[in-house]
Amino acid sequence: MKSSMFEGLSAFPLTPMLQGEIDEKAFISLIGNLAAAGVNSIGALGSTGSYAYLTIEQRARAAKLATENANGIPVMVGIGAIRYEDVLKVTEDAQNAGVSAVMLAPVSYQTPTAEEVYALYENVSKYLSVPLCIYDNPATTGFEFSDELLIEVAKLPTVGSIKLTRLPEDIPTAKERISFLRQQIPESISVGIGGDWRATTGLSAGCNAWYSIIGGLFPRTALDIVNAVQSGDIKRAEMLSRALEPLWQLFRAYGSLRVMATIAELFNYVESPCLPFPLRSLTGDALHRLELIQEDLRNLQ
Amino acid sequence: MKSSMFEGLSAFPLTPMLQGEIDEKAFISLIGNLAAAGVNSIGALGSTGSYAYLTIEQRARAAKLATENANGIPVMVGIGAIRYEDVLKVTEDAQNAGVSAVMLAPVSYQTPTAEEVYALYENVSKYLSVPLCIYDNPATTGFEFSDELLIEVAKLPTVGSIKLTRLPEDIPTAKERISFLRQQIPESISVGIGGDWRATTGLSAGCNAWYSIIGGLFPRTALDIVNAVQSGDIKRAEMLSRALEPLWQLFRAYGSLRVMATIAELFNYVESPCLPFPLRSLTGDALHRLELIQEDLRNLQ
Repeated sequence: MKSSMFEGLSAFPLTPMLQGEIDEKAFISLIGNLAAAGVNSIGALGSTGSYAYLTIEQRARAAKLATENANGIPVMVGIGAIRYEDVLKVTEDAQNAGVSAVMLAPVSYQTPTAEEVYALYENVSKYLSVPLCIYDNPATTGFEFSDELLIEVAKLPTVGSIKLTRLPEDIPTAKERISFLRQQIPESISVGIGGDWRATTGLSAGCNAWYSIIGGLFPRTALDIVNAVQSGDIKRAEMLSRALEPLWQLFRAYGSLRVMATIAELFNYVESPCLPFPLRSLTGDALHRLELIQEDLRNLQ
Repeated sequence: MKSSMFEGLSAFPLTPMLQGEIDEKAFISLIGNLAAAGVNSIGALGSTGSYAYLTIEQRARAAKLATENANGIPVMVGIGAIRYEDVLKVTEDAQNAGVSAVMLAPVSYQTPTAEEVYALYENVSKYLSVPLCIYDNPATTGFEFSDELLIEVAKLPTVGSIKLTRLPEDIPTAKERISFLRQQIPESISVGIGGDWRATTGLSAGCNAWYSIIGGLFPRTALDIVNAVQSGDIKRAEMLSRALEPLWQLFRAYGSLRVMATIAELFNYVESPCLPFPLRSLTGDALHRLELIQEDLRNLQ
C-alpha cells in the first residue's frame, strides 16, 4: 500500500535567508501558509529550500521549524550532501525533528558511478526510520539515473517514492514511461513528478504526486491543478497549467529557485535578498520580464 | 612579474582517507615525496585531494600538514565549497596554515550565473592575503566559464593564475587560444593546464604551469615532461607523454581520481579504501585494465 505521504500535492517552500542565517519568521510563515491550504505534504529543504547551502545545524533547525509548524501535515526534508558523514548526521537530525520522510539526491563533486550511487542509497537506508524519496535531478547533481539504476535503488525496502524530473512531454509517451517503471518497481512505490511545467502531464500520465515548486508559495493554485486531474478533468488542469506558462518560461530561462525567490521578495513574503550568496534573485531584463506578469501572479494563491 | 608559485610543475597529491578521517601518515609521506622531488609547488586539496569531501576542520588540518611537510615548497589549497561562508572559513584557516596560494572553483548546487560567479570571486578576493588560482573545471562544478567571464575574473587584483581544463588538442590551435587569453588578461597572470593528457600540448603552447595529477604520485616523471618542454625538446615531451597514454585512457574512462587512488592502493602508498565514500577505487574490468599496465606504472617515479 502506498504511503499517503507521497500522494497529491507536495509543496516545496523556500528557506528564506537573512545574511547567512535562516529567516525563521518568514520560514514559519511560509510553512503556516502550506498547512492552512491543506497540502498533502511539505517538501521542506528541497532544492527550492536551498538545503545544499545550509550548515548541518541550520538544516536540523529548519527541519524542526517545519515539523513544529506544519499542523500535522507530513514533512519531508532533503538529506543530500557531498560528504557522506554529513548525509548521516542530517538524516539523524531530521528523524529526531519528527519528519515523515526524507529525500536524497546523489549530491557529489566527482560525478559518481552507478555503483557508487547504489552504495550511497543502500548505506543511507540502514539509518532510516522513515521512508525515502529518490530524487533524480541531473541539473543540480550532474548525475543522471539510468532506468536500470533507478529500478535497482527503488527495490531497497526503505524507498517510498521516486521524484522524476525528466518525462516525455506528451501524455501518451509519458504514460508509457510511467507504466514501464511501475512494472519494474514494487507496487508500494509512488512515482512523483518534479519540474512544475511537466506536472499536468505527469499527473495525467499516472504520477501519484506533484513535487511542486509553485506549491511552496501558492499552494491553492497548485492544489487546483492536482484536484482537476484527480477528478478526471484533464482539460481543466491543462488550462490552469497553460495560464502559468509565462511563469514556466521564466523558470526555464533563469532557474525556478531564482524566480520564486524574486516573487517572494516582490510580494514581501520574505526580506530581500533571501537567497544564499552567491545566488541572487532576478535583476535587469529578467526582473523586468517577471514584473510584466506581476499582476497575473497576484491572482495566484 | 609572474609569481614563481604558478610556474612549472604543480603536483596534486591525493588526500588518503581512513574510515572518514585523513590518513595523516600516508598524506605526510605523499607530501614528503613531492618535496624531495623538488616540484615547483604542491596543489594539496585539489580535486585529486578530495577537498569537497572533507569537513572544514579536516581541510584546515590537511593545509597545515601540507605546509609543515613541504620543506619550503609553496603549497596551494582548494577553497571551494557550496556554502559561501564555508569558503571564507576554509580560506582563513588555509592562510593561517601558511599556504602560498589558494585555488577556487565555483562549486555549487544550483548552476550559478556568470554574474553570481563573478560576485563569488570578487567577494572572496577581499579576504585573501595570498594569490588566487581560478579553477575552471566544468566536469566537477557543472559551470563552464566563458572566455569573457574568465578574463573579467582574472582582472581581480588577487588573481595569480588560471587553471584551464579545456584546450584544443593540437599545439598551434592551443597556442592561439593561450595567446588570445594572454592578450586580454594582466601580464602577471600565469596560465596553467589541468587534465594530464593535455599537459604536453598545453606547456608546448605556452602554458606556464602544469597542474598535474600524476605529479602527485610520480613527481619525477611529471618533472621530466616539464623539463623537456622547458628545454625546447617538445619531441621528447611528446614521447614521454605518449608512453603514459594507457594511463590517460583510464583517466578518461574512469576518472583520474579513482585511477590514481587505485594505483596508490596497489603500490601500498595508502591503505585501502582511501577514497571518501561513496567514491571507490577501480574494481572488475576497470581494475583489470589497470593491472595490465601495472608493470609499466612501476617504472614511474
